[in-house]
Amino acid sequence: MNRQALVGEIRRKQSFLCVGLDTDPGKLPAHLKGKKDGVLEFNRCIIDATKAYCVAYKINTAFYEAMGSKGWEIMEATLDHIPDEHFAIADAKRGDIGNTSHQYARAFFKTLSFDAITVAPYMGADSVMPFLEYENKWTIVLGLTSNPGAHDFELQRAGEELLYEKVLRTVSGWGNPGNLMFVIGATRGEEFENVRKLIPEHFLLVPGVGAQGGSLQEIASRAMNSDAGLLVNASRAILFADSGENFAKAAETVAQQYQSEMAAFLLH
Amino acid sequence: MNRQALVGEIRRKQSFLCVGLDTDPGKLPAHLKGKKDGVLEFNRCIIDATKAYCVAYKINTAFYEAMGSKGWEIMEATLDHIPDEHFAIADAKRGDIGNTSHQYARAFFKTLSFDAITVAPYMGADSVMPFLEYENKWTIVLGLTSNPGAHDFELQRAGEELLYEKVLRTVSGWGNPGNLMFVIGATRGEEFENVRKLIPEHFLLVPGVGAQGGSLQEIASRAMNSDAGLLVNASRAILFADSGENFAKAAETVAQQYQSEMAAFLLH
Repeated sequence: MNRQALVGEIRRKQSFLCVGLDTDPGKLPAHLKGKKDGVLEFNRCIIDATKAYCVAYKINTAFYEAMGSKGWEIMEATLDHIPDEHFAIADAKRGDIGNTSHQYARAFFKTLSFDAITVAPYMGADSVMPFLEYENKWTIVLGLTSNPGAHDFELQRAGEELLYEKVLRTVSGWGNPGNLMFVIGATRGEEFENVRKLIPEHFLLVPGVGAQGGSLQEIASRAMNSDAGLLVNASRAILFADSGENFAKAAETVAQQYQSEMAAFLLH
Repeated sequence: MNRQALVGEIRRKQSFLCVGLDTDPGKLPAHLKGKKDGVLEFNRCIIDATKAYCVAYKINTAFYEAMGSKGWEIMEATLDHIPDEHFAIADAKRGDIGNTSHQYARAFFKTLSFDAITVAPYMGADSVMPFLEYENKWTIVLGLTSNPGAHDFELQRAGEELLYEKVLRTVSGWGNPGNLMFVIGATRGEEFENVRKLIPEHFLLVPGVGAQGGSLQEIASRAMNSDAGLLVNASRAILFADSGENFAKAAETVAQQYQSEMAAFLLH
């Protein structure tokens, strides 16, 4: 999916919501827990219930790999169920030497048909570039993450700047706002303006709203650009909005609430 | 596998060789290329031919994921074929927020029974700690890698030191030499002494000898400690030593040459 199509979907749906499919088999509703294909059935119901209110889905590969090759099959079948007009992200945090990153790019862009993959920047240019070679595919590089560990390296000094600033400044030169996004954590509202000085045009994938509670106002007011420029993810707040048989309806209600909040910001 | 057992195997076999199973289906010998289970048959032959000369195998997950869920099955079957006395490494470069890293640890230590996994440090402590919670399992954190991209961040200033030095110094406090190793690239012989000042006791996983040619002398003389403290990997130099039907015999010969070189260093 190219940028024009993504921005078009955001305008049409008045939403920049990404639904994160971090499906923990241990948290399924009782009637699906332990059932063969319970995770897949759950994912399909969540997708059907939320697709009118979101523009993207994000599959967290860890939750599927924890189930072994069967989990990888569930991931493939889940991806197949995501409608074409939705932006499909493999939240995989991959990255290795060039030769190996080429194989990861092949895995997620060719063998599977994700639109985007998250990539870790530590190993530098040749670990990121192979993902950028695919037309109409996106590389989403870790910038500033929302976890406590961000203080260990990302927020440490790196010469005249902080490490995450160096990463944004350096990596943005390897691609363009049409094939490169950055992960920017939502718990650091005060950093969004700083991020926008460094990368005004790029889309930001913002994890971490929802379970932690609404900083959507802060994100939208500080980080939105003329193309919206944001994909805001919610996972557990939507997936596990209700722990019983009513989970899909509850997920729909929460997704609709997010969409409605987002629509108000898109009008500005 | 605990440290005592690993060091015992190194002494018994007089080898600190790790064979990297970066099996590219496009590079299989003609009689296996395109054949159903060709990759698995190739891996089994390589393992059978080299197991007397190495102490570890390293499965590069990217090459298997490029084949989709079928590839994940081949990875599982390959791991099953690695003898118990060999140290089995998932070269997966994973790492995410704590909740997700727990799932990756489960995937590679519980669902699959690898002894170790490679992990990227960018996201900090809570992205690494979940892997360290498993008894007799190892976390191998990226320190200084051998690719050109190492110059982009790893070798840049980070306060009073270089970023990779900060990573070694910081991460070594999260575990101990019995559950934590570091990836240190072999193309930078001059850095090994510096690394040993920071982490004298930890094992180092050294990729990148072989195809690039022998710096084994330099690595052993600068980075060996009293427990050997090294796992030196060779992938393509062994896997593709011969491109025809004779590949396993050729792999055995190359592995034996490495072992014999290594034995000489272990005698010192």
